[in-house]
Amino acid sequence: MGNRKQLKFGALIHGVGGTATAWRHPEVPVDASVSFSFYKEQALTAEAGKFDLVFIADGLYINEKSIPHFLNRFEPITILSAIAAVTSKIGLVGTLSSSYSEPFTVARQFGSIDHISGGRSGWNVVTSPLEGSAKNYGKSGHPSHDERYKIAEEHLQVVRGLWDSWEDDAFVYNKETGVFFDREKLHCLNHQGKYFSVEGPLNIARSKQGHPVIFQAGSSESGKSLAAKGADAVFAGEDNIEEAKLFYKDVKDRAVAAGRSRDDIVILPGIHPIIGRTQEEADLKYEELASLINIDVALQYLGRFFDHHDFSQYPLDDPFPDLGEIGSNSFRGNTDKIKKNAREKGLTLRQVALHSASPRSDFVGNPEKIANLIQQWYEEGAADGFIIHAPIPSVLKDFVQLVVPILQERGIYRTEYEADTLRGNLGLSFPKNRYTVANSRV
Amino acid sequence: MGNRKQLKFGALIHGVGGTATAWRHPEVPVDASVSFSFYKEQALTAEAGKFDLVFIADGLYINEKSIPHFLNRFEPITILSAIAAVTSKIGLVGTLSSSYSEPFTVARQFGSIDHISGGRSGWNVVTSPLEGSAKNYGKSGHPSHDERYKIAEEHLQVVRGLWDSWEDDAFVYNKETGVFFDREKLHCLNHQGKYFSVEGPLNIARSKQGHPVIFQAGSSESGKSLAAKGADAVFAGEDNIEEAKLFYKDVKDRAVAAGRSRDDIVILPGIHPIIGRTQEEADLKYEELASLINIDVALQYLGRFFDHHDFSQYPLDDPFPDLGEIGSNSFRGNTDKIKKNAREKGLTLRQVALHSASPRSDFVGNPEKIANLIQQWYEEGAADGFIIHAPIPSVLKDFVQLVVPILQERGIYRTEYEADTLRGNLGLSFPKNRYTVANSRV
Repeated sequence: MGNRKQLKFGALIHGVGGTATAWRHPEVPVDASVSFSFYKEQALTAEAGKFDLVFIADGLYINEKSIPHFLNRFEPITILSAIAAVTSKIGLVGTLSSSYSEPFTVARQFGSIDHISGGRSGWNVVTSPLEGSAKNYGKSGHPSHDERYKIAEEHLQVVRGLWDSWEDDAFVYNKETGVFFDREKLHCLNHQGKYFSVEGPLNIARSKQGHPVIFQAGSSESGKSLAAKGADAVFAGEDNIEEAKLFYKDVKDRAVAAGRSRDDIVILPGIHPIIGRTQEEADLKYEELASLINIDVALQYLGRFFDHHDFSQYPLDDPFPDLGEIGSNSFRGNTDKIKKNAREKGLTLRQVALHSASPRSDFVGNPEKIANLIQQWYEEGAADGFIIHAPIPSVLKDFVQLVVPILQERGIYRTEYEADTLRGNLGLSFPKNRYTVANSRV
Repeated sequence: MGNRKQLKFGALIHGVGGTATAWRHPEVPVDASVSFSFYKEQALTAEAGKFDLVFIADGLYINEKSIPHFLNRFEPITILSAIAAVTSKIGLVGTLSSSYSEPFTVARQFGSIDHISGGRSGWNVVTSPLEGSAKNYGKSGHPSHDERYKIAEEHLQVVRGLWDSWEDDAFVYNKETGVFFDREKLHCLNHQGKYFSVEGPLNIARSKQGHPVIFQAGSSESGKSLAAKGADAVFAGEDNIEEAKLFYKDVKDRAVAAGRSRDDIVILPGIHPIIGRTQEEADLKYEELASLINIDVALQYLGRFFDHHDFSQYPLDDPFPDLGEIGSNSFRGNTDKIKKNAREKGLTLRQVALHSASPRSDFVGNPEKIANLIQQWYEEGAADGFIIHAPIPSVLKDFVQLVVPILQERGIYRTEYEADTLRGNLGLSFPKNRYTVANSRV
């Protein structure tokens, strides 16, 4: 049974950030976002559930209106490296901005995690939605949405190039003769582009998965286009199965149009399951979480998608305000969707804000129901697997203990890891070194 | 007994890089520089020996003439984070260039390691000696030696400022009222300088050691000046006790002139002990290592200090060539010393090259002799402690098993860690948050 036919799972670990107010839930340790023992335990739970990966999100700007998890949290490269040291099979995927980083450093850091972990690292390429990021990086202005994606494309091209600096058999290690490496198998990239110029070579070899796995999470046109051309996996964010199917088909079609196969890109929507032994118990858990949301926090949470726009200036029970271009240079995929949804359904600001800050209300039920929904999304072409958001930490444990065995019994989810590498478990092919291919050495 | 009166030790872990040719020694795993199990074992050995810290060096440019360890090695932030996860007391210090990094990212990454490790991280601020670094970071040119130190000073100032974004009691965590933090204890840096402009605040709190420990390793005038003004510790590189005493006094005097106390800065020269049960056994081990050096490798190794200058163009047995300004924008402290030494002693190029690439020949002997030398340097004011280079991995084990007990018995080295933090073990004071001090809250 090839692993292509099996579901894939990731666990988004986000400290106190399951929802805007989840930190107030009795179960959540208030310092979870900077607690290594919390991250370690979540990662080990996910690994016990044979998950493909843990996922660490990120952001480069906060202000006093930011929600708790954003204010004080681990930086992804560091926490992924630490998790790598205490796990053995699970993949380690993290967000790093292509707008505010240097390709040489990014290639090294993910390359180094790939060696520490034996081929389990992944980079989620984001372009940084928040204008304020520019102020923390001495830039005169935040690049436009379109330009950020152009930068991202070139950045990724450079990083992939640097990862090929050393052919896989470049190191000879002959103690007798004193030859450490074969000079013909070391390559300079010599990239000269619009945004970056990088000579190389990189001072770290490829790991056993060749390149770290490339994730993409944007749902705007530019985001989907970048994903189709260059990503191995997509962290998707659709609200319902119909939207998810359209997104899934769209991205796979774009990948084919870009000369790739449908299987070259894995699509993983994020879901927020809430699991009870019965539907009633699950509903109660949902209500407990939802009751922590108040309108002030909801407005702040909504505001962040619109680059910290102040929504408190509008009447709460009037129709959602006409924002013009506000938000279009930020999380554009999200803000377009929020605007469209409000317009089409005639929602008020209060409704939009509470909806955005609340836990999602599908995937709430007993283990059978969750398993059925997952299977339906999977079999109807809405997902290759899922990223599990755990609004409170016990959700992940419940999922692993109660839902995973059902999926395994149905034969749609692994009972043991197929591979040692993230790429192997995701069923992605090994990227040959560009220089080795060119010289027909393989 | 205060820990101020005790020796401090660090372990430089450098894979196959103990000397330019140590990788050929039968004991060295050829992939040590990218082997996590190797790093983990060395760190655990150092922790068993109650060492203050492990130290990871770095560089941002290689070419085909680089020595093996530089070609393919872990990036410091990642390997330190991984070591943090598998140790509990030892400090985690790594090199990161202030010439090719953004203060916001540096502050976050070391701040994050500080939380992962519970207050054990340290940043060795380097200015990047190699011209080629500029080519990997899209810069038109490598800044001059003096300018690099000006950049470093401002960079460090920004990083320290960002680390104070949150006062120590800023997080209230009141689940009842929904107040997560006290807005008055969150501060924007708003730095506008010559090289950096950074608004802040940083999205990570201070750890229990306040700030990560700042290391400095340059021995040039600018390096010593930066250390005296802003560093908590110096990784020194003097060849003999007389030079070391002058350096020690010089840096401490400069610290006092900068308004600090002599105890505010810890000076740790690097040494390369080679330990045998007898002097004869130690001499044999030394010879075994020295015999691996050949003149070609020695010329390459020497060349790197002079920014990859090609020494193969000069006659080997003529006096060391007059290099004019070559090397003065690279590792200037080292190159000045090499030039001066060659001139004063009338050395040939062959002698200089072999000397630079060989293991140091002092600190070779039985455990008593090593302990005596260490005690002498310590008591005569040449060192507050040492960074142990292990040319081959067994050296660290020998040191911990054979030399450490002697120093403990003499009462000059700890038998148990005094503190949980690196700062605490080094005997350094806790840096108050600048905003808290200003408001007289403490």
